[in-house]
Amino acid sequence: MPTIGIDLGGTKVLAAVVEDGTVGATRKRSTPSEGPEAVATVIAELVSELGGADRLGVGAPGQVRPDGVMTGAPNLAGFGHRDVPLARLVADATGIDAVRVDNDVNVGALGEQAAGAARGMRDVLCVFMGTGVGGGLVLDGRLRQGPHGVAGEIGHASFRPGGRRCGCGGEGHVEAYAGRVAMEAEARRRHASGEPNALVKLAGDRTMKSKVWAAALADGDPVAVSLLAEAVEAVATGIASAVMVLDLERIVLGGGLVEKLGDPFVARIGEAVQARLFPGSPTTVVPAALGDHAGVIGAARLAESG
Amino acid sequence: MPTIGIDLGGTKVLAAVVEDGTVGATRKRSTPSEGPEAVATVIAELVSELGGADRLGVGAPGQVRPDGVMTGAPNLAGFGHRDVPLARLVADATGIDAVRVDNDVNVGALGEQAAGAARGMRDVLCVFMGTGVGGGLVLDGRLRQGPHGVAGEIGHASFRPGGRRCGCGGEGHVEAYAGRVAMEAEARRRHASGEPNALVKLAGDRTMKSKVWAAALADGDPVAVSLLAEAVEAVATGIASAVMVLDLERIVLGGGLVEKLGDPFVARIGEAVQARLFPGSPTTVVPAALGDHAGVIGAARLAESG
Repeated sequence: MPTIGIDLGGTKVLAAVVEDGTVGATRKRSTPSEGPEAVATVIAELVSELGGADRLGVGAPGQVRPDGVMTGAPNLAGFGHRDVPLARLVADATGIDAVRVDNDVNVGALGEQAAGAARGMRDVLCVFMGTGVGGGLVLDGRLRQGPHGVAGEIGHASFRPGGRRCGCGGEGHVEAYAGRVAMEAEARRRHASGEPNALVKLAGDRTMKSKVWAAALADGDPVAVSLLAEAVEAVATGIASAVMVLDLERIVLGGGLVEKLGDPFVARIGEAVQARLFPGSPTTVVPAALGDHAGVIGAARLAESG
Repeated sequence: MPTIGIDLGGTKVLAAVVEDGTVGATRKRSTPSEGPEAVATVIAELVSELGGADRLGVGAPGQVRPDGVMTGAPNLAGFGHRDVPLARLVADATGIDAVRVDNDVNVGALGEQAAGAARGMRDVLCVFMGTGVGGGLVLDGRLRQGPHGVAGEIGHASFRPGGRRCGCGGEGHVEAYAGRVAMEAEARRRHASGEPNALVKLAGDRTMKSKVWAAALADGDPVAVSLLAEAVEAVATGIASAVMVLDLERIVLGGGLVEKLGDPFVARIGEAVQARLFPGSPTTVVPAALGDHAGVIGAARLAESG
């Protein structure tokens, strides 16, 4: 029987049969809001509809310990603040012994390494720029999880010590300058304190999505231009430090902001990274290649990596 | 037969029988200046004096590829700028098949993980503050070398983009603020441009060694105090980014400046690292424990790690 990968999101659950990094049959359902057991049941139903599996991998939005226990899942209704043994719940519901669960960003990185923009390479750091800045690290073909399961947190690398407060409570982290939530907060702060800008005009009271950023930048709005330049600096600083410590050849960039701003944005970050390395370093920065399938492909790979 | 570890330095070669991380018999010789073959011969003589070995590990001052070829050794007379297949030369001279060679900083890190300040831990980043800032990274009990053999280069992590020129040609790297050579250059620059300081007065035309720094700091010299504060910030920024990307629990600090300034300096760097992490992070920063034996112990461990 095949391997099935599950991409568990805050609003939907995607399940796919994956063979050799290629997605076959898929099934999709809304994420139930009744909590962990209901989520495990939906996963079991999707697996059954797909004909069952020997091995099952799950990418989940939150912090996951190496033993498959979720220790934080703010975007999953009903998961609350307690520890949730998601791997065991899914194993019980499906009858499959070999269930592996990891953080969705880690799993996406594994997908890009297995079958996407870092295919054929043993090491890759994937950086996802969305509401926050997430990262997943694959070394020697395996996910680096770390003793607390929080490896890859490039969004919390140090950018400006003593600088802007980060969502995590730390100071001057990359995410405080390059995460969309932090960038929106700064744009609104500037708007309110005498720097009116297109970002706030376009977004109004609604969330300042990536397309708002794209439109304001296309307009040449000075605040948008300046905040984006700072975001590039921040992300590039975090990436460059990781490259130096790990000797990485390939960085993959994904997430909403990267998709919206496209290849020129990726190239710009690549140049800023290069400026921080040894002169002539062979490291390349490329866009993610798997789109919405990175999660299920990576989850299947996770299950197969034992 | 036992394992022998070799610490090949610019001025001396230390060889030791190492068993379970403990140093037994040792032999020491001056490093010959006639080049790679002469070095291999001296190593073979020391091994023979120690009764021979099944496995041999060598820590060497310079850049070493994963296949044991040195691609740069500025501190070894006669090695020049060509590639030197040191592992093969030593295997030929000693008749031992199992010869492993790695960079001395990497080997020191492996020693501290095997039997020193990170004993019993699977992961450690060792940072050595001397003329430059070197680093060695052990993950899951094995040295991280990277595809070009340059992993662990914490001295070239990004600190102040656009800032001081680093010895490597890059800009704003940690080493440009926290390496002794760079710190001396800055102290002399300030002295010459109207900020006379105790560092230059104490050192005169001689190298500004760690003991000069200790004396000037004890005197409260403002330039020494300010340059050291900057060095702490720089090193802590590089370390914190590595901790975030890798989820590291233990950082080991060594090198001349750390030995001279002692535990309060280590504690100060530890606090600066902590201020850059997730609040409440369990990462600890401790001094190296093996002193001059880190090299031979780590080299033996390298040989045993296959």
